[in-house]
Amino acid sequence: MAMNVAQKLIDAHLIQGKMTPGEEIALRIDQTLTQDATGTLVMLELEAMELDRVKTEVSAQYVDHNLIQEDNKNPDDHRFLQSAAARLGVWFSRAGNGVSHPTHQQRFGIPGKTLLGSDSHTPAAGAMGMLAIGAGGIDVAMAMAGEPFHTKMPEIWGVRLTGELPDWVSAKDVILEMLRRHDVDGGIGRIIEYHGPGLAKLSAMDRHVIANMGAELGATSSVFPSDDAVKRFLEAEGRGDDWQALAADDDCTYDVEDEIDLASLEPLIAKPSSPGNVVPVREIAGEPLSQAYIGSSANPGYRDFAIAAEMVKNRQIDPWVSFDINPTSRSILETLIRDGHIMSLIAAGARLHQAGCNGCIGMGQAPANDSNSLRTTPRNFPGRSGTREDRVFLCSPETATASALCGKITDPRDLDFAYPRVKNPDDPVVNNQHLFAPLESAQASQVKLIKGPNIASLPTFDPIENDLELKILLKMEDNVSTDEIMPAGAEVLPYRSNIPRIAEFSFRGIDEDYVANAKDSGDHCVIAGNNYGQGSSREHAAIAPRYLGMRVVVARSFARIHWQNLVNFGVLPLTFDDASDYDNLETGQTLSFEGLHDALDKGETLTARAPKGDITLRHGLSPRQLEVLREGGLINWMRQHGDTGNKH
Amino acid sequence: MAMNVAQKLIDAHLIQGKMTPGEEIALRIDQTLTQDATGTLVMLELEAMELDRVKTEVSAQYVDHNLIQEDNKNPDDHRFLQSAAARLGVWFSRAGNGVSHPTHQQRFGIPGKTLLGSDSHTPAAGAMGMLAIGAGGIDVAMAMAGEPFHTKMPEIWGVRLTGELPDWVSAKDVILEMLRRHDVDGGIGRIIEYHGPGLAKLSAMDRHVIANMGAELGATSSVFPSDDAVKRFLEAEGRGDDWQALAADDDCTYDVEDEIDLASLEPLIAKPSSPGNVVPVREIAGEPLSQAYIGSSANPGYRDFAIAAEMVKNRQIDPWVSFDINPTSRSILETLIRDGHIMSLIAAGARLHQAGCNGCIGMGQAPANDSNSLRTTPRNFPGRSGTREDRVFLCSPETATASALCGKITDPRDLDFAYPRVKNPDDPVVNNQHLFAPLESAQASQVKLIKGPNIASLPTFDPIENDLELKILLKMEDNVSTDEIMPAGAEVLPYRSNIPRIAEFSFRGIDEDYVANAKDSGDHCVIAGNNYGQGSSREHAAIAPRYLGMRVVVARSFARIHWQNLVNFGVLPLTFDDASDYDNLETGQTLSFEGLHDALDKGETLTARAPKGDITLRHGLSPRQLEVLREGGLINWMRQHGDTGNKH
Repeated sequence: MAMNVAQKLIDAHLIQGKMTPGEEIALRIDQTLTQDATGTLVMLELEAMELDRVKTEVSAQYVDHNLIQEDNKNPDDHRFLQSAAARLGVWFSRAGNGVSHPTHQQRFGIPGKTLLGSDSHTPAAGAMGMLAIGAGGIDVAMAMAGEPFHTKMPEIWGVRLTGELPDWVSAKDVILEMLRRHDVDGGIGRIIEYHGPGLAKLSAMDRHVIANMGAELGATSSVFPSDDAVKRFLEAEGRGDDWQALAADDDCTYDVEDEIDLASLEPLIAKPSSPGNVVPVREIAGEPLSQAYIGSSANPGYRDFAIAAEMVKNRQIDPWVSFDINPTSRSILETLIRDGHIMSLIAAGARLHQAGCNGCIGMGQAPANDSNSLRTTPRNFPGRSGTREDRVFLCSPETATASALCGKITDPRDLDFAYPRVKNPDDPVVNNQHLFAPLESAQASQVKLIKGPNIASLPTFDPIENDLELKILLKMEDNVSTDEIMPAGAEVLPYRSNIPRIAEFSFRGIDEDYVANAKDSGDHCVIAGNNYGQGSSREHAAIAPRYLGMRVVVARSFARIHWQNLVNFGVLPLTFDDASDYDNLETGQTLSFEGLHDALDKGETLTARAPKGDITLRHGLSPRQLEVLREGGLINWMRQHGDTGNKH
Repeated sequence: MAMNVAQKLIDAHLIQGKMTPGEEIALRIDQTLTQDATGTLVMLELEAMELDRVKTEVSAQYVDHNLIQEDNKNPDDHRFLQSAAARLGVWFSRAGNGVSHPTHQQRFGIPGKTLLGSDSHTPAAGAMGMLAIGAGGIDVAMAMAGEPFHTKMPEIWGVRLTGELPDWVSAKDVILEMLRRHDVDGGIGRIIEYHGPGLAKLSAMDRHVIANMGAELGATSSVFPSDDAVKRFLEAEGRGDDWQALAADDDCTYDVEDEIDLASLEPLIAKPSSPGNVVPVREIAGEPLSQAYIGSSANPGYRDFAIAAEMVKNRQIDPWVSFDINPTSRSILETLIRDGHIMSLIAAGARLHQAGCNGCIGMGQAPANDSNSLRTTPRNFPGRSGTREDRVFLCSPETATASALCGKITDPRDLDFAYPRVKNPDDPVVNNQHLFAPLESAQASQVKLIKGPNIASLPTFDPIENDLELKILLKMEDNVSTDEIMPAGAEVLPYRSNIPRIAEFSFRGIDEDYVANAKDSGDHCVIAGNNYGQGSSREHAAIAPRYLGMRVVVARSFARIHWQNLVNFGVLPLTFDDASDYDNLETGQTLSFEGLHDALDKGETLTARAPKGDITLRHGLSPRQLEVLREGGLINWMRQHGDTGNKH
C-alpha cells in the first residue's frame, strides 16, 4: 500500500489496532518530553507507580516554564525535577537552557521516531519527520514506563504547499493562513501533513513554527517529510548521522486535501482573543500598541530573531512600546550573540530576557491594561498573558518588529527599507553542557528525590460508582480552553505540584463561585459546548476539578488531550447523542445515572435522568479506557497491571 | 576653616542652619532620583501639589524594580510614570535600561552636586564626590518642587584607606570589612568619608559599591573625593567636561576616624540574615549552595561582571547551582557583549536576566527552600529574597563565582588558576537612546497622565480642626514597626499607587478589625508605646491610616522618620508629658481636644480630656511643621505656599 509520511510513521510504531480513522490504535513511543509545568506531576506519578527507570530510547525533562522565582516553590520544583531525572534515567535540561520543543529538536530530533510530550506543542518535532504528539502528563508517564500510547487513528490531512513566500512574509503567516481558513477546531481528529514543492525553501525551524501551531487547529499532530532541509539542519547541529530520508510514496493519498500557494500569502495577524481570529495586517494597521514580543516555541529559530535584529539595526524602537526578546535556548542565544544580532536588538531598545517560555505562558511580561500586545507566540486566549482584560495579537516577527519600530500596528511591507535577507548559519553554536545525560543505573538508584515543602504526593481517587446523582455546577459555551478550566500564569503555576492547593483556582475565569459550590455539593458534573478543553495539555484541568468532586463532564464535543486526561483521572466524559439536549440542561439541575458499570460495558450509549426527561449520552471509550475509568484512573490501573520494575 | 569633602558639599548647599552635628540644616537639592517602586507615589504627590514642572537641575525617573509583569499593574505603572515624567519635565529611563544608581552615576553624576533619591541606596553617587541622600517619597517630591531638604547635620566619619587590595579581593570586601567592624547601626547619624592613598586603585564603580552599601551601616551618606579616578570614569562616559576636582583640605578634621589597610583584607562574606554578620569566607568554605547571583546596584560595574566571566571562561558551573546574571544597564550589557564576557558567562551555564534590580528586591530569583544563596547584592534581611526561610549570603563576585564553579562555598584564593586581571574599558558603550530627555514646557503641558485602573489620585486631607473628639481605636505596645502598620510583600505592594485600596491592609498584623472600626468611627486616634513606627520609611504607614480617619497618634515615643511622615500627611503626633498616663487610656474611650490651634501655637504642651481626667501631651513640632500640620499636610501646604507654577 502506498503510504504518506504520517501513515509510515504510524505503521512503523503500531502495536495494536488498524490504521482506520476513528479506530483506537496503540503506538510504541521512542522518546518523551516533559517540561516543568507538567513534569513535576509526571515525576510524582512515576513515583506513585514505583517506576525504577524509564524504558524509552530518550526521555528528556526541560525546565522552561516556571522560571520566575517569587518564592521557593519554583526553584524547589527545579531541584525536585533534577533529582527525579537523575533517579529515573532521564535527560535534564536546566533552567536557562531553553524552551523544550526547539531544544529537543536540536539535540534529540531524529526522523522516523515517535515523541510523546506532556505539552500541547510537542507536535513541533513533526518538522523533522517525526510523529510527535502532545498528551497529558500521565500518558507520558505511561510511555516512560514502557507502555504504548493509545489514541484514535486520525485522518491524514494533506496540505500541498506551492510557490515561494514573498518578502516580509514568513512561516508564521503560513500557519496563520491555516487558522484563517480552518479556525481552532479545523484540525481535530487529524494529522496535518505538509507536502509539495513549496517545502523546498522552508527550513527545519520554519517547519517547527508551522507544526508547533498545528496544535492551535486542534490537530493531533503535524508532520513534514525528512528531506534535505532536515539533513542540513542536523548537519549544522553536528548530528548529520542521525538523518534519514522519510518521504511519502508517490502514489499515496490523503483523507482530506488542501493547498496553499505561498506566493499568494501576505502578512497576517490573529486578533484578540483566539488564534483563529485571523485577518490581514493591513486591515488593522495604524492601531496603537504597548508591547511587541519576540520568542516562544512558535518563533524559535535563529532566523526569527535575526530578522528582527536586522530590521532594528541602527534604528530605535518606539518610546512607548516595550520590545521584549525571549531567546529560545542557550545555543541559539550564543549564536545570536556571536553574529551581532543580540547587540542590535539591545541597542535598539529591547528588553532581553532569559531563555525560556516566559510571557507565552503568562510567566511575567503581562501587557498593560487596555492596550494592544503583538506577540509571535502561539496563543492569545483571554487572560493567558496575565492581564485579565488583555488584547493580544499573534503575528510574525516581521510584523511585530515593524510595529515596534513605528509605534502602531504596521504591515511590514509598508516600511521604507528593503527586506533584510537572513540565512540560518551553517555553523550554529551547539552547547549541550547543561543538558545533563542520564546517570548509569547503579548511580541513579542512589539518588534521593529532593522535595520542597510545597511538593505534595498525589491524592488517591476512588473507582467510579455504579449509581451517581450529580448536580450540574456549570454550563459552559463552546471552545472553553484548559486555560479557563485551570489558569496558568505566575499566580497559579507555582502550585502545580500541590493538587489540593491548585484546585482552589479551578474554573476561576468562568465562575468565581465554582470552588465554593463544589465544596458544598461534593460529587458533581459540568456541561459544556463544542471543543471543550482546547489548548494546553495540562492535566491539572482534569485532576483539580476531580479532586473537588467533578465526576462527569457532558459536552457537545471534546478536545482530544483533555478528553483523554479526564479518563486518565477517573472522570467520565460524555457527549450528547442528540446535540439539542444541551439546551435542556441548566446549572443547578441534577443528572442521575443508575447501573453505570453495566451501561458502560454494554454499548456506546447510556441514559441519564434529567429534570426534563431522560437524555441519551455517548461515551466512545475503548475497553481499556473503561477499565481505567472503573479503577479510578491510570495510576490505580498501573499499580494493578503495569510492569514498573518494582512489581509488588 | 579647613573642610573635608562632606563639609564642602554641605557648605555649598546650606540654606539654613549650622554645620554642627545634631542641628537641623536645610540643603539645596540639585538632582533627584526616583524609581518605580516609590516613584508612583511621588508623581501622585506632585499631581496633588499641582506642580507644573520640576525645578531641579536634573530629576530622573527610573523603571528598574517592578520589571516582572504578572498582570497589568506593573506595566500600567510604567506607563503612568512615563507620562508623568513627560508632563513634569523629568528624565525617564524605561524598563530594560538599567538600575537607577549606576545609570544615574553614568549619565548624570557630577562632582560637587547634591542628589536626593527615594531609594535608600541613593548614597552610591557619593562615589563621584556628590552628596547623595536617600529619603521618603514626599521629601523627594518637595525637592523636585524646589524646596530644600531638612535633616540633622551628621557627624563626618573619616575612613582612611591605605595599601592595595590583594588578588581575589575587591571593593565588596572593603564594605564588608566596614560592616564586620561596625555592624548595621555603626553609621547612624554619620556621613562616611573615604580618603587616603588606598583610593588610588579604586575605580569610580568600585567606590559606588562601597558608597552604596554604606546604607547597610545606617549612614546618612558616604562620600569620596572627586579625583583622577572620577575624571577617567567621566571621560570614558564621554562626559569629561562634567568633571571637577573635589578634595578635602590638607588640614581638615573628622568627627570620628578609622583606617583600613586594604592589603590586609581577605575575601569576606555576610552570613544570613544580616549584612553585619560578616566572617572570612574560609571559615564557612565547603558549605553547599543552590544559587550564585551576580548583579544589583551594589555590584554594578563592568569589572564586576567581567571578573566573573573571566573566571568561568571555558569552564562550567556546577550542575546544582543556578548562576544568575543580572546586568546593570543597557550600556554595560552592550559593553560586556562587545568584549565577549556575556558569551563566556552563558557558555558556562549562566542564566542571563534583563537589566534591573530583579531578585535584589525579591522580584523573581528567590532561592530554593533550605539552601544557600550567595549574592553580590546589598541586603540579606530575612525573607527579602522572596523565600520565607531563606539563607542568603552577601559576598564579592569573585567569591560567588568561585562557589558557583565548585558547587560549594569557596574562598576564591583556593581556585587552581591565577587571578584574571580585568580592566575597565576606556571606551565603554554609551547608549542613552532610551533615557528620554524632558520635553519642552509647551509640549509637556499637553501630556495627559496615563492611569491604569489600579492608579488612584491621592486623597485630599482636610486641615486639622480646632476641636476634635476622637475615639481610641487601638492601644499598642512598644516597638511597633511600619511593617505592622502597613505590611509590604507581594500581596500588598502592587497597590502602592492606590491609597484607598492599600488602606484596607492597615494595622492588619495588630488588629484585623481596625479597618472596619475606622470606617465605622470616622475620625479617630490610636495609642502606642515607645519607638512607635520603627523600621521601613514607607510613607503609606502614615497616609493609609490618615485616609481611614486617624487624626492623632499618642505614643510614649516615636521613631524619627515615621514621626516626620505623620506630620507630612497631617496627623498630629503627641507624646505623654507623664508617661504613666499611657496606663489610663483604653481602646474604646474618647479623647477630646478643644482650641487645638491656639494650644499648638502657645507652647509644647496641650491638654486632652479623657475619661479618667485631663492629661497633658507634648508635640515638639517646629513652627514650620505646625504650619504644615494645620494645613492638612505637606501637599496642602505646598499648594498654598510653594511655587508650583500653578498658584491659585
